[in-house]
Amino acid sequence: MPKDMTETRDIFERRESAARSYCRSMPAVFTKASGSELTADDGQSYIDFLAGCSSLNYGHNDPDMKAALIDHISADGIAHGLDLHTDTKAAFLEAFDRHILEPRGMDHRVMFTGPTGANAVEAAMKIARKVTGRTNVIAFTNGFHGVTNGALAATGNGYHRGGAGMALSGVTRMPYDGYFAGATDTADFLEAMLSDKSGGVDAPAAIILETVQGEGGLNAASTEWVQRIAKLAKDHGALLIIDDIQAGCGRCGTFFSFEEMGVTPDIVTMAKSLSGFGLPMAMLLVRPEHDVFGPAEHNGTFRGNTHAFVTARVAIEKFWADDAFQKELADKAELIHGKLTELANMVEGSKMKGRGLMQGVDVGSGELAGEICAKAYENGLVVETSGSEDQVVKILAPLTTPVALLEKGFEILLSAAETVISEKTAIAAE
Amino acid sequence: MPKDMTETRDIFERRESAARSYCRSMPAVFTKASGSELTADDGQSYIDFLAGCSSLNYGHNDPDMKAALIDHISADGIAHGLDLHTDTKAAFLEAFDRHILEPRGMDHRVMFTGPTGANAVEAAMKIARKVTGRTNVIAFTNGFHGVTNGALAATGNGYHRGGAGMALSGVTRMPYDGYFAGATDTADFLEAMLSDKSGGVDAPAAIILETVQGEGGLNAASTEWVQRIAKLAKDHGALLIIDDIQAGCGRCGTFFSFEEMGVTPDIVTMAKSLSGFGLPMAMLLVRPEHDVFGPAEHNGTFRGNTHAFVTARVAIEKFWADDAFQKELADKAELIHGKLTELANMVEGSKMKGRGLMQGVDVGSGELAGEICAKAYENGLVVETSGSEDQVVKILAPLTTPVALLEKGFEILLSAAETVISEKTAIAAE
Amino acid sequence: MPKDMTETRDIFERRESAARSYCRSMPAVFTKASGSELTADDGQSYIDFLAGCSSLNYGHNDPDMKAALIDHISADGIAHGLDLHTDTKAAFLEAFDRHILEPRGMDHRVMFTGPTGANAVEAAMKIARKVTGRTNVIAFTNGFHGVTNGALAATGNGYHRGGAGMALSGVTRMPYDGYFAGATDTADFLEAMLSDKSGGVDAPAAIILETVQGEGGLNAASTEWVQRIAKLAKDHGALLIIDDIQAGCGRCGTFFSFEEMGVTPDIVTMAKSLSGFGLPMAMLLVRPEHDVFGPAEHNGTFRGNTHAFVTARVAIEKFWADDAFQKELADKAELIHGKLTELANMVEGSKMKGRGLMQGVDVGSGELAGEICAKAYENGLVVETSGSEDQVVKILAPLTTPVALLEKGFEILLSAAETVISEKTAIAAE
Amino acid sequence: MPKDMTETRDIFERRESAARSYCRSMPAVFTKASGSELTADDGQSYIDFLAGCSSLNYGHNDPDMKAALIDHISADGIAHGLDLHTDTKAAFLEAFDRHILEPRGMDHRVMFTGPTGANAVEAAMKIARKVTGRTNVIAFTNGFHGVTNGALAATGNGYHRGGAGMALSGVTRMPYDGYFAGATDTADFLEAMLSDKSGGVDAPAAIILETVQGEGGLNAASTEWVQRIAKLAKDHGALLIIDDIQAGCGRCGTFFSFEEMGVTPDIVTMAKSLSGFGLPMAMLLVRPEHDVFGPAEHNGTFRGNTHAFVTARVAIEKFWADDAFQKELADKAELIHGKLTELANMVEGSKMKGRGLMQGVDVGSGELAGEICAKAYENGLVVETSGSEDQVVKILAPLTTPVALLEKGFEILLSAAETVISEKTAIAAE
Repeated sequence: MPKDMTETRDIFERRESAARSYCRSMPAVFTKASGSELTADDGQSYIDFLAGCSSLNYGHNDPDMKAALIDHISADGIAHGLDLHTDTKAAFLEAFDRHILEPRGMDHRVMFTGPTGANAVEAAMKIARKVTGRTNVIAFTNGFHGVTNGALAATGNGYHRGGAGMALSGVTRMPYDGYFAGATDTADFLEAMLSDKSGGVDAPAAIILETVQGEGGLNAASTEWVQRIAKLAKDHGALLIIDDIQAGCGRCGTFFSFEEMGVTPDIVTMAKSLSGFGLPMAMLLVRPEHDVFGPAEHNGTFRGNTHAFVTARVAIEKFWADDAFQKELADKAELIHGKLTELANMVEGSKMKGRGLMQGVDVGSGELAGEICAKAYENGLVVETSGSEDQVVKILAPLTTPVALLEKGFEILLSAAETVISEKTAIAAE
Repeated sequence: MPKDMTETRDIFERRESAARSYCRSMPAVFTKASGSELTADDGQSYIDFLAGCSSLNYGHNDPDMKAALIDHISADGIAHGLDLHTDTKAAFLEAFDRHILEPRGMDHRVMFTGPTGANAVEAAMKIARKVTGRTNVIAFTNGFHGVTNGALAATGNGYHRGGAGMALSGVTRMPYDGYFAGATDTADFLEAMLSDKSGGVDAPAAIILETVQGEGGLNAASTEWVQRIAKLAKDHGALLIIDDIQAGCGRCGTFFSFEEMGVTPDIVTMAKSLSGFGLPMAMLLVRPEHDVFGPAEHNGTFRGNTHAFVTARVAIEKFWADDAFQKELADKAELIHGKLTELANMVEGSKMKGRGLMQGVDVGSGELAGEICAKAYENGLVVETSGSEDQVVKILAPLTTPVALLEKGFEILLSAAETVISEKTAIAAE
Repeated sequence: MPKDMTETRDIFERRESAARSYCRSMPAVFTKASGSELTADDGQSYIDFLAGCSSLNYGHNDPDMKAALIDHISADGIAHGLDLHTDTKAAFLEAFDRHILEPRGMDHRVMFTGPTGANAVEAAMKIARKVTGRTNVIAFTNGFHGVTNGALAATGNGYHRGGAGMALSGVTRMPYDGYFAGATDTADFLEAMLSDKSGGVDAPAAIILETVQGEGGLNAASTEWVQRIAKLAKDHGALLIIDDIQAGCGRCGTFFSFEEMGVTPDIVTMAKSLSGFGLPMAMLLVRPEHDVFGPAEHNGTFRGNTHAFVTARVAIEKFWADDAFQKELADKAELIHGKLTELANMVEGSKMKGRGLMQGVDVGSGELAGEICAKAYENGLVVETSGSEDQVVKILAPLTTPVALLEKGFEILLSAAETVISEKTAIAAE
Repeated sequence: MPKDMTETRDIFERRESAARSYCRSMPAVFTKASGSELTADDGQSYIDFLAGCSSLNYGHNDPDMKAALIDHISADGIAHGLDLHTDTKAAFLEAFDRHILEPRGMDHRVMFTGPTGANAVEAAMKIARKVTGRTNVIAFTNGFHGVTNGALAATGNGYHRGGAGMALSGVTRMPYDGYFAGATDTADFLEAMLSDKSGGVDAPAAIILETVQGEGGLNAASTEWVQRIAKLAKDHGALLIIDDIQAGCGRCGTFFSFEEMGVTPDIVTMAKSLSGFGLPMAMLLVRPEHDVFGPAEHNGTFRGNTHAFVTARVAIEKFWADDAFQKELADKAELIHGKLTELANMVEGSKMKGRGLMQGVDVGSGELAGEICAKAYENGLVVETSGSEDQVVKILAPLTTPVALLEKGFEILLSAAETVISEKTAIAAE
């Protein structure tokens, strides 16, 4: 390692908290990025199948967003505006109204929360509690909704829950779709528990779910199940919150992950790819009758990240003004499914997971999945695992990745898998 | 109002949540900003004595930060990097190490949390609970630490607490410095309660405080009191968390609000002006022995806002590499004190509040304070109130505001106060 | 109604809280009781198939206990002794040791809690949390453990939970044996949730269960299920608490409800029929290694009800010194089963519930069950319903009820059922 | 120790939980008691200045109660009646109505809770939360309200709180009368906190207090303070709960501890001496408009201890039908005050505590107080300490103790104190 790079890394060792994580398995110091490729300070380039955990659905430094942002900054456009009116916020809202809400017949209002997904989830849970006068929120096994205390109560992951250092309250956990693997339907179970006067589950303020559990192992709920849950929420006076932070913004092949399911969530939480450029931005959509917060009742200094409004508007106008992009996504989803089937075929007992451009393979163990990703990284591919045991190799490539680059990325991945598996087989045979 | 502006406002009415707030009393649609001035879409310009609630301590669009950010974007610098190593993060850490931590003898590690102050506070409270194995956090009357559930438990404001829709737990409230107005010392009280085996206050994981309560009405704690609290924390095995989100980054005249108090907090939370440019960025500083989170145990997609790292580095290098800026602040604090004394003299029973460039006048009623600010806004000054009854006219001008502009702003403010008060006197005399 | 009786009832109307309940459906003013019969102030006598909700397993005013108690009082024996040593406590402990613990190979210690079942449950949950350093207690659908806040969190009944006026915490609800009616095994489900690192169920301090859910509708767990749960508790570092308050003291045909299941609970809670005479007494049994409370760490003024010790000792010595009583119970259980089968045969779709002398019939609706019990009461039988919809006619006759009287009681019950059903059929036919 | 006694003690060692407490410092095995005297199995007799912690205000085995109870049992009176109507309950209610409530102009209803003080407190807090729809209950430093989770949250004692093994919620602690020792008035403080919109104390459901804190060190609130708190409760929409469990039933010289203070509590909790005979019995009094529980919404198997109703009725009729007893109490209170003044004079810096027949001396250290009580016990006096450091020698003699016996008891106590102090002085002088 050249001297400069050593020094650069030294500052992380000396001064950055032990909480840092991705940089441990992918230690390069990244300096530039464009489209679906990252470049490190040693000149090495990487294909990006992680996309900022689905925060870079349109790739790195999209030229149109980039140009608009540079123009905005050059012209002394507002960088920080609290929740004052700005021209950039108006333009974003108009684009979102015209191209997203209006065509989908959604009458929701937009609430800009603090610019993290967790903050949007906290706000959503608060609204549901305020609207219903109830405390209990139903959340599901393997759901991930953030790590601030309110949202963390709804998050299943024990490692993250442990970080709270205290028992969390206000949430009842229920099994997600498919949890009983073909036996009892989990929607039936939820219905039984909610209907049973002595079931011991308090009347819910909300039911919160992801249609595909990104962190939880790419578990994809069926349309029928989501519809059942939506109906249960309605029947029991609870709000339906769909957390579309990771699965939304086109990741599942449509703008919202749920838009072809025939359900209308009371609240939708959004973040990650919302700004289009990877800038911090989060918001929630809420049916007008549930828009009950008073002025600044839920607030936050950065609830109006105007730079993000600029790029988010471009993202909406560029990709969602017509259906061209969505069609492209369908083709890519198929390509990904094919390639992952090849991977799945290499590992006995493995399972295909997810849907759209949020697919992966459960290879049965976190160790194997981790080794495959590590080997791929060595060969120039950034890719990560997910699931309660990190057992799923997860593909979150930018939606805009050219087909050729997608194929190149899978070539690296499949070759890495082959190498790892044959090494393992060799060792086992000794 | 010209047609275009009506349309612009219409989208806010139609689609933005009722939670929006500042735009209600300051309805202009802002389009540009530079230094300490904002411009609206009707060409009207405003002097900014609010500075994004202390998020724009270096003014709007500082030319050096702006240039560095445009360069970064133009060169396809990383926009979003999760918590991967990036050259921009390294450069920020090095600057922060060299110019801030090192000279102040602080061995703290830096943890990048989600880019909101609330997220940093949540992380801080989690660390304290994990370190101590205790749940209880001591927080103070009129403290403000954010509105996500963990932080909200520590926030005093009843309106915000009510937004939770549920009882919050894990925090014991204690009276802040001066709460008994000259009678019992509140540090004595806290000591008595913590030492009393039947006092009913559980052993604390942490004591969290702001040295000046920005939202709580510019209550400034004395050095002696902060030292007493620091000692109590130590004696009772609790971590001392100083929330420097609003009072830090030079706002009190030094980089940290507490740096001349002779205390070493176990954890410091930072946000608001940290990026220097108004971009979302938050972090906490934690003593190495308390840096106990495992990798990603507290995580968040936007914990590495690289654009913010770029501007934050420039801010540190430009303003804090030597003591020139700090000296300038001392003069401005005096100027502000003088001008506010004039305001205080207009209102019988009013009180001077705060310190440094975070001062204000408690004019005795929220109604009067609100009318003064409204009149000032009419005349081109953005200024806000604070306190439990909004009774404090609060000055949070950018620290970089030229003296002439500061004076111009105060001219508007004092004239507004005069107008409002004479109108009130006239009405009362009728 | 004669004048006196009106007056007597008047005081209840005027001065007793609306919380009174049994007296609403059984409004007689009772004055005397002996064995399995109650007498009211109008001379009417009633066969008692309720037995103080299983608090009078040995009937009313058992002559031996009565004599011993009168002797004790006459001799100025201690009536109240806090938790001081008394000869009566020693005698009870010796009898309990010799006839109950010793023969069953149980090394548990006896902790006298406040004299209510809820108090014993609260103490048990506290011990489990103190032992494990964990908060979460697993409890089951339709479980009933009392209505003080700690115990109420573990109680399933929504009506009782609602009485708290606040959200209760520290408990995770799981489906009891048979909840999925033949599909997924609920022990499998619990195992999956506890083993899933992202299942969102915190590591448990305890699993608490009744082997037969008395209030919850006479659901009887299978031996296999209880063994599975016991193993899960052990594997996951949790204490197994068996709440034997209603099902214990012979009610299921053996002294403990679980003693033929091959499990050793870490804690057993006891109350109701413990004193033998209906006097308030509760205690818990705890394995020596979990006997972690310091002196009076859990306390209570009436934790040593010495009158109850007197009668409890007699009960143990009279009924449990040999196996004669237990054999008698087996015969009576069979008789009850036969009679209830007759009842079940009258109602289509009805289900037999419970085991031992804790059996009933789920007649499908609370309305029908209530009408049957009301009619029986009219004809001189005290009998009650249970279950989440009050849909189960529940037989809790004293274990000592002579066969002839049992038969007489069932005659009333079956005849009442016949009348009610034929009336309903007649109405339906009109 | 003769063989029998060793065996008796052996069973406690072998089988009773480590939670036992009083028997540790007073290890005699008690067998008989009459009036204010206890007899142990070795024939030794003790004067009782503890009275079952104020549960035996009328002494042991009062002859009239004893006779009535034996009559009741002999006649097969109901021993256990759930909450059915019984003649004994009616007779108690009538006596309580006629001699207690009616003459004091109290329109409260009587709710029989489970027969422990903690249970009554739990019910009271539940009612307050249900009535107000709020969660927060204000409780005071050094207050003791029981150790089940709901009541324990309101109890100040850290040792007992620690027994919960988890953080308790729903209660805000405030300083009791006199906590600031002459400086800030604690009622002023409470008012400031409740009135401060950012004080961080949620709107209270109830304020709960003891007028004399029995366990907390015999702190006696002034009439003015209690009136202030009552007014604050009313002004802030909270219910006033007076916990009269230890201080009531004549202990302070009147039936209720508060009856000469000019306040009308919304709820009064009672237990301890309520039955008159030391039998488990508890209840609460609630204003009719707050009697909001539905049937059995708060329930409990032993909520109708009919034996206790028998003795409780006699107690009311015998002692409270006219003012003779109350006058006697005034004289005895004076006698006790005089004797304790002698004790106080022996110890420099000691403080007189309490009022009525609930007085003591704070001798400055738990060690000294403990040694005095131990020495007194050796010489035939049962007496205990109280307070957060066990620093108060507390006199809770039966109210019926003859003057001569009171004097004899004090003779033992003062002589014990003299011995202990002179030994200490001698050691210090060495």
